[in-house]
Amino acid sequence: MRILLAACALAVASGASAQRPDPLPSWSDGAAKQGVVAFVMAVTDRRGKDYVAPAERIAVFDNDGTLWSEQPLYFQFVFMLDQVKAAAPKHPEWKNNPAFQALAKHDQKALAEMGQKPVLELRGQANSGMTVGEYDKTIRDWLATSRHPKFKRPYTDLVYKPMQELLAHLRANGFKTFIVSGGSVEFMRPWVEKAYGISPEQVVGSQQEVKFEMKDGKPVLVRGPNFVFMDDGPGKPVGIYRQIGRRPIAAFGNSDGDLQMLQFTAAGEGRRLALLVHHDDAEREFAYDRESHVGKLDRAWDEAKANNWIVVSMKSDWKRIFSFEK
Amino acid sequence: MRILLAACALAVASGASAQRPDPLPSWSDGAAKQGVVAFVMAVTDRRGKDYVAPAERIAVFDNDGTLWSEQPLYFQFVFMLDQVKAAAPKHPEWKNNPAFQALAKHDQKALAEMGQKPVLELRGQANSGMTVGEYDKTIRDWLATSRHPKFKRPYTDLVYKPMQELLAHLRANGFKTFIVSGGSVEFMRPWVEKAYGISPEQVVGSQQEVKFEMKDGKPVLVRGPNFVFMDDGPGKPVGIYRQIGRRPIAAFGNSDGDLQMLQFTAAGEGRRLALLVHHDDAEREFAYDRESHVGKLDRAWDEAKANNWIVVSMKSDWKRIFSFEK
Repeated sequence: MRILLAACALAVASGASAQRPDPLPSWSDGAAKQGVVAFVMAVTDRRGKDYVAPAERIAVFDNDGTLWSEQPLYFQFVFMLDQVKAAAPKHPEWKNNPAFQALAKHDQKALAEMGQKPVLELRGQANSGMTVGEYDKTIRDWLATSRHPKFKRPYTDLVYKPMQELLAHLRANGFKTFIVSGGSVEFMRPWVEKAYGISPEQVVGSQQEVKFEMKDGKPVLVRGPNFVFMDDGPGKPVGIYRQIGRRPIAAFGNSDGDLQMLQFTAAGEGRRLALLVHHDDAEREFAYDRESHVGKLDRAWDEAKANNWIVVSMKSDWKRIFSFEK
Repeated sequence: MRILLAACALAVASGASAQRPDPLPSWSDGAAKQGVVAFVMAVTDRRGKDYVAPAERIAVFDNDGTLWSEQPLYFQFVFMLDQVKAAAPKHPEWKNNPAFQALAKHDQKALAEMGQKPVLELRGQANSGMTVGEYDKTIRDWLATSRHPKFKRPYTDLVYKPMQELLAHLRANGFKTFIVSGGSVEFMRPWVEKAYGISPEQVVGSQQEVKFEMKDGKPVLVRGPNFVFMDDGPGKPVGIYRQIGRRPIAAFGNSDGDLQMLQFTAAGEGRRLALLVHHDDAEREFAYDRESHVGKLDRAWDEAKANNWIVVSMKSDWKRIFSFEK
């Protein structure tokens, strides 16, 4: 019945496409697209039982692996490697640090296994003392000059076209769209507005200490070495509560780090959308799930199956992954 | 010259009022109103040298004493007193706590002098273990039933009409408006959307620890006892950086707790607006500044004079303070 309704909704949407172009042209006409379209129609139908007022139409998106690629290593990791290596001569004490040892040896497996935190801590020490403006410049410079090892393109080219369409479709229907990522806010804010149409204040992420100081008579914000908030796993609903202050009605993720955000979203009253992107296209992108060190999808996948969350197959549900594809 | 330009801008604005009503009818036609109107015209004039793109039109407002009253004691303090008193039987260890002693003795001077932090800490212990939903209900119930000692009205009636007009005027000109307050986010979010048109995600405030838990198979957020962020004084630019991620072009405050936010805003490149509300109307509201224990205005006032920030006299610049005035 649910699928029938979704199909009807899609038929209605398709009927309307005589006037309006399909808002999700990179999506194949399968259950995933139908589910998304039906959800948006249901919560925006003023006369329907699932109607949600615009103010409550909050949609949250993981970034790494959900809106852009994350293999062979989180892109912010690659940035941090470069930054930490550059700062190493000033930090002889790092010699015995396991994260630094793994970095120096390019031991990507060890790095992926230890998670983002130890490297974020090294990064924190590396950029401590910079003003936020100086730090922002190091990120912009890195993004402008670095290239992805597989695609030989700027990392910011590796955003998913179907998700860009979905973000625009949600906003066209009165949604507010937020990123809720384990990455640091600083690494996302310089480019996500152009890439996704998401403004800096709608980015929730991990946070490093920052302090207000007067420097040569000018007020500046200076970075400290410590992490003050990890926006990953159970931290994601906390980050949402702190910064957004409302429970989302739609959540999009791709890995176990998104599980609690999806659970928290799905547990709200009324109609909800929970969606996982499954990386199953080794040819056009990467294929990985339960055994991966980066973007592991295991518990969240089981939960998705148990709760009828939408699971997107990148291979079959997305006609096109990147804008640069022919 | 600056004043002349402002006067011209106001004349142009007044000329337009043949078609459109004055957006700031509760403001007297003095230098404060002229300065605000001229600023908005300058940053929205596409052909002018001070033009600012809509995405960068960020305006930040202190809450207590800037958007609503704060005397004889911050309203959140009064809420916390009630909450802490109710929880006291469960916390015999509070007997030797100076903040609790001051609370028990109704020693408002001592309470005001010790600042918000010790009482916020007691409050944290009092509501620790509640889910965020349960805590939200205690706030809504308190706001619905409590009355201000001077005005005998709900506290949420004590919002300033001229500032409501200013918020609406800024938004009508493409600004995003944010609250940046020393108060806790939870205490503001339930009512500021209705009072000011500011949505929960545009509230920056002090933060208490919150943890994700599964409770009877349901995901919930539970309050912990510790404070994790004080959004006051030098914390305000930090809160802005964390949550908004852009430097505001306009900042509005009323006390020394807003000094760094005003400095940080004013120090940006291009045209900026920094404004202080001066409480000088004992009859219609309250009169206090350099010597006050609540909302002390001393250093920030000196800075305002030295830097030509706008200082609003509530007595002479505001024709009406509250909506309920005749």
